[in-house]
Amino acid sequence: MKKLINDPKNVVEEAVAGFEAAHGDLVTVSHDPIFIARKDAPVSGKVGLVSGGGSGHEPLHGGFVGYGMLDAAVPGAVFTSPTPDPILAATKAVDGGAGVLHIVKNYTGDVLNFETAADLAGADGIEVRTVIVDDDVAVKDSLYTAGRRGVAGTVFVEKIAGAAAERGDDLAAVADVAEKVNANVRTMGVALTPCVVPHAGEPSFELADDEIEIGIGIHGEPGRERIKLEPADKIVDRLLGPILEDLPFASGDKVALMVNGMGGTPQVELYIVYRHAAQVLADKGIEVTRSLVGNFVTSLEMQGTSISVLKLDDELTELYDAPVQTAALRWGR
Amino acid sequence: MKKLINDPKNVVEEAVAGFEAAHGDLVTVSHDPIFIARKDAPVSGKVGLVSGGGSGHEPLHGGFVGYGMLDAAVPGAVFTSPTPDPILAATKAVDGGAGVLHIVKNYTGDVLNFETAADLAGADGIEVRTVIVDDDVAVKDSLYTAGRRGVAGTVFVEKIAGAAAERGDDLAAVADVAEKVNANVRTMGVALTPCVVPHAGEPSFELADDEIEIGIGIHGEPGRERIKLEPADKIVDRLLGPILEDLPFASGDKVALMVNGMGGTPQVELYIVYRHAAQVLADKGIEVTRSLVGNFVTSLEMQGTSISVLKLDDELTELYDAPVQTAALRWGR
Repeated sequence: MKKLINDPKNVVEEAVAGFEAAHGDLVTVSHDPIFIARKDAPVSGKVGLVSGGGSGHEPLHGGFVGYGMLDAAVPGAVFTSPTPDPILAATKAVDGGAGVLHIVKNYTGDVLNFETAADLAGADGIEVRTVIVDDDVAVKDSLYTAGRRGVAGTVFVEKIAGAAAERGDDLAAVADVAEKVNANVRTMGVALTPCVVPHAGEPSFELADDEIEIGIGIHGEPGRERIKLEPADKIVDRLLGPILEDLPFASGDKVALMVNGMGGTPQVELYIVYRHAAQVLADKGIEVTRSLVGNFVTSLEMQGTSISVLKLDDELTELYDAPVQTAALRWGR
Repeated sequence: MKKLINDPKNVVEEAVAGFEAAHGDLVTVSHDPIFIARKDAPVSGKVGLVSGGGSGHEPLHGGFVGYGMLDAAVPGAVFTSPTPDPILAATKAVDGGAGVLHIVKNYTGDVLNFETAADLAGADGIEVRTVIVDDDVAVKDSLYTAGRRGVAGTVFVEKIAGAAAERGDDLAAVADVAEKVNANVRTMGVALTPCVVPHAGEPSFELADDEIEIGIGIHGEPGRERIKLEPADKIVDRLLGPILEDLPFASGDKVALMVNGMGGTPQVELYIVYRHAAQVLADKGIEVTRSLVGNFVTSLEMQGTSISVLKLDDELTELYDAPVQTAALRWGR
């Protein structure tokens, strides 16, 4: 295992300390229990947004804490759900009196721990609503998950719900728009290489030199199939096909297209993927009106990509375009 | 070789086409000869900024084209200088009557080709000034380079000179501030793994499973030494020592600290590096007033990092903080 780390046990703690040192203008960090909060939290009268999950997917979630997006992010150990305790602490820290929305990627551990934290917060008089993100069309009921997995579409949920909260929507409205984004976004990914979880020290799965995994999960969970490496355009077709069929997307739709890097993919490759994805959508009469290309929801150093397509209407577009100020985000058109 | 590409011959062309499709609100792309220009170029009366070099270092340079930074970027083949022809075309395209600054990383091919283009532009009546960036303290007179190499400090040069041009400084003043940034920034990098140039199909160099290269160049050129993998904090000490001695930086200095990912490095690792680098600087009485952590100047999928330290004064800080709007940049404090 070759990594720029000290002790594998301290990876998350030290990374969060570095994040705090670098972005102290935007965030404050609680170290025990561990969570990252917006500097000005709680914002009085605003719905608070809390997300979190296992570390190793950065910039998700800490990189999205700030004006117009998350109020707090709760990082667990690498690829491991945070416990209820820090989730509860983060929820209390960002409650500005208007209630708190939990945005949870659909993994059994995350769902249970956020639920426990929500119950405890409720007992303390904080109203909590939860939205479960499950945008991955690749598989159902896979490793760690009942139902579909939550993957890169989470970025759209956090951005758009964050904008709704910022403009003053109440908890029910913010939760509704978060649900609406989740209902309208579909994602599928591919891995060219596995990644190495620091405390495991070994690749999370094996792929032959000429093999790729279509439908990979963000923790290296199995996807739909392993195939021989193909040209990028063919791989894009394999990802976009199931995405477009699922909603289904149709001619005349306006969409946001995200090409997400898994962490170890050169940017030239992401743009080659984007190029063909945009062509396929154009050929089907689907208009890409907003685009994101880069590393948003990663799996450590995994090489690969995921494609997300979000159906937009006027409301979602307005919220998509609202200002945002976080450590990671240059929000594109 | 496992990459998300179609034909290795078409990597740059297809990536640029993808970039154009994704960021058509910010840039226009010329395909023959190939360059990326700011959408509103030429900006009348403003000094034009042109940079470029081999592809494979994205987001440098195309990701930095836009308001407050570059007017044009000229991508060569992967790790190969662009020829004078597209550099000349880009120079003409962004000349708004106030002359053009060429920002050139110090590699022999880049320097020669930009010089030829500058001469040709001059013959056409366009005044061109050139600043050579050579911030890498690792080695002198290495593969491809007479003198020191130009690496991640280029981002600071492009950002700050871009801000000076945007506020209306004339060509001499913009060139002066670019020189000043180069004179005040020092960088050194480390590689954990090599990268694979698509048209070569094989790793550009070899490293054993427990070996790292201190002082690596951004094309995989040899650095200072190969050593066994060490804890991140020790590696940071090995990079920061030569950087701080070189200027030299001193107690009381205010600096910008950039921890740059080489392309394949997980973000948690970059923040672990940042944490210790910030500590070392604090211990020496050097105040970090601005921070950047992320992938800015990459080497395809190479794992590793570089650290850059830029000494700031009030003028540079003001220009650092000026607004910027490019495909890649969320400019941090």
